[in-house]
Amino acid sequence: MTKVAKNRKVERKKLSYNKLKGLGEEIIEDVAKKDIPTLKVPSRGTSNIVYDDVKRYFVLGDRYGKRSLGNVKQIKKIGQMVHLANFCKNLVEIEKTATIREMYYVSEGWDIGFDNQQESNNVGEDIEVTLGMSREDLGLMPEEDGASVYGSIVFQEGDIEIDALKSGKSGYTISPTIDEVEFLDHNVERVIAVETMGMFHRMVQENAYKKFNTLIVGLKGQAARATRRFLKRVNEELNLPVYVCNDGDPWGFHIAMVIISGSAKLAHVNHDLATPNAKFLGVTASDIVNYELPTDPLKEVDILRLKELASDPRYQDPAWQSEIKKMIKIGKKAEQQSFSKYGLEYVVDTYFPEKLEMLD
Amino acid sequence: MTKVAKNRKVERKKLSYNKLKGLGEEIIEDVAKKDIPTLKVPSRGTSNIVYDDVKRYFVLGDRYGKRSLGNVKQIKKIGQMVHLANFCKNLVEIEKTATIREMYYVSEGWDIGFDNQQESNNVGEDIEVTLGMSREDLGLMPEEDGASVYGSIVFQEGDIEIDALKSGKSGYTISPTIDEVEFLDHNVERVIAVETMGMFHRMVQENAYKKFNTLIVGLKGQAARATRRFLKRVNEELNLPVYVCNDGDPWGFHIAMVIISGSAKLAHVNHDLATPNAKFLGVTASDIVNYELPTDPLKEVDILRLKELASDPRYQDPAWQSEIKKMIKIGKKAEQQSFSKYGLEYVVDTYFPEKLEMLD
Repeated sequence: MTKVAKNRKVERKKLSYNKLKGLGEEIIEDVAKKDIPTLKVPSRGTSNIVYDDVKRYFVLGDRYGKRSLGNVKQIKKIGQMVHLANFCKNLVEIEKTATIREMYYVSEGWDIGFDNQQESNNVGEDIEVTLGMSREDLGLMPEEDGASVYGSIVFQEGDIEIDALKSGKSGYTISPTIDEVEFLDHNVERVIAVETMGMFHRMVQENAYKKFNTLIVGLKGQAARATRRFLKRVNEELNLPVYVCNDGDPWGFHIAMVIISGSAKLAHVNHDLATPNAKFLGVTASDIVNYELPTDPLKEVDILRLKELASDPRYQDPAWQSEIKKMIKIGKKAEQQSFSKYGLEYVVDTYFPEKLEMLD
Repeated sequence: MTKVAKNRKVERKKLSYNKLKGLGEEIIEDVAKKDIPTLKVPSRGTSNIVYDDVKRYFVLGDRYGKRSLGNVKQIKKIGQMVHLANFCKNLVEIEKTATIREMYYVSEGWDIGFDNQQESNNVGEDIEVTLGMSREDLGLMPEEDGASVYGSIVFQEGDIEIDALKSGKSGYTISPTIDEVEFLDHNVERVIAVETMGMFHRMVQENAYKKFNTLIVGLKGQAARATRRFLKRVNEELNLPVYVCNDGDPWGFHIAMVIISGSAKLAHVNHDLATPNAKFLGVTASDIVNYELPTDPLKEVDILRLKELASDPRYQDPAWQSEIKKMIKIGKKAEQQSFSKYGLEYVVDTYFPEKLEMLD
């Protein structure tokens, strides 16, 4: 590991450790002062989730709730928070991680456990917002891995160097511990993320990574947290423009938008996950018309979703508004693989170059 | 690429190409002889799917249907088969692949297309059974990638060497084109496949690959075709014993059984996919009792499924029968991550060594 990476890792670890320890110290201080121990937990309710026009993603507002040991109803919740924070402190200390499912089972051995997984997830999120840190920093990992990456970039993970051109045709898999990975070297000008692994493999086969000097990222549907963190990091640390190409329907639009402007549910960690400078490349309603793509008719649920998007603060840009209206008007949607109508190579030989030129 | 691998690849390609070409030649011969062109398509109906006790997997029986150009109802189907076979012949020739979704869109440009994806999938399967080859050999790839592999093994894919210890913490991803990958070198004694990526990451973190000198395979639920092909190849080409560890419920049992004895639906390609020597390591009903695991009660649908398994020819081994009965009797199921009740390390430090010793 390079010295910079090692220092950063040590810093992150120290920060997590101290924040977790601080939670307990706050309670001890209250006891010492003979005050009733109280924790301030920022509210995650919808009324406290605010779209920040400058940052261009959702953030949490100023409202918070108090959890007091003076309130009988809140004693259990505080006990769970302290137990969980202690478990995380231990994870950070020994440099291990656990899935939220493992953590739930571990809690079976505690004096004060959880009734179900949902309850333990909620307490986990309480700790995230209270400390202002993402659960990955606290050692709690999601189950699922992130996207696949193919192209000319070299990562460093511990003592291991990983070349994303030498990890096989399915590329390098972004792991939940992506923040421990350093970008060692690269030779690309941009990043193109695509919704399906079908399109990922098409781009690898057609040498899109050479033609466009790009990293290819296969999202596998809705982008995992680790994928969003990765895209933010390549965008900001390596100054690479990020393009997202998905199916031409409201669900494809929103997969791109969550990468760009984050989700409301994760307002407390969007500062680590959102990439406001990422651009939606397609498939747009205009693409459907201009390229005469094979389509399916919009279903009722698609139209409802498009109308929701139209009034969502993340879609207030005139270009988005125009594309949403156009899709409702033509009443059609198209998959990204539908370019194959013109031959397997068409999407790489014609569509991508034309769209990249438009956006650059 | 080594010479052996290159030869094998050339042989596979030649075989695929000739079989596809043969399909068209058969029709031309019929025409030349002034016979009515006819194709024999083995039946994939349930009555033609037979469990082979010696091979220990489902195979197709001897029944077949005839598709004749003399039957007006069958003309379209034969036209679709010929078009699709021709498309595949071209793919094999230029050494490309397409997803079945791309193929469907490509067919929009044909004189004789498909009404929907299901119809084109069916014709694809018709060609598979008629030629006795898997669709991967014909260039048609599934959308999804296979499992993740971590451990001391080196693959060769084209000119690229891939070290599964140097592909990152999430390991090497088995791609749909796994048959083009050669096993160059390895230093392991066995393979342990686990159902969840949570368990995969646990095993990587606890150095299970060193402790048991094993490859770790993260199945991500039901094993993809490419994963099953990979497990069969490491078992037969490298003589490595394969163990499967899943959740202790009927669905976990069956994920293992499909790896071991194949599925009925894919009876025509089980000879390429089934690994009859693979062993189910757990979680068994006995494990649930012996290790006093945290459990959930069996649901009605779990019990129904267990009863189905009990009468399935693949589960006639006394050990399986006993475990299925025991699970119904105790009325409980357990996830593989539930060992965390005893601490995160327990599954690797205690459970795996005990179970491997029992099975070896």
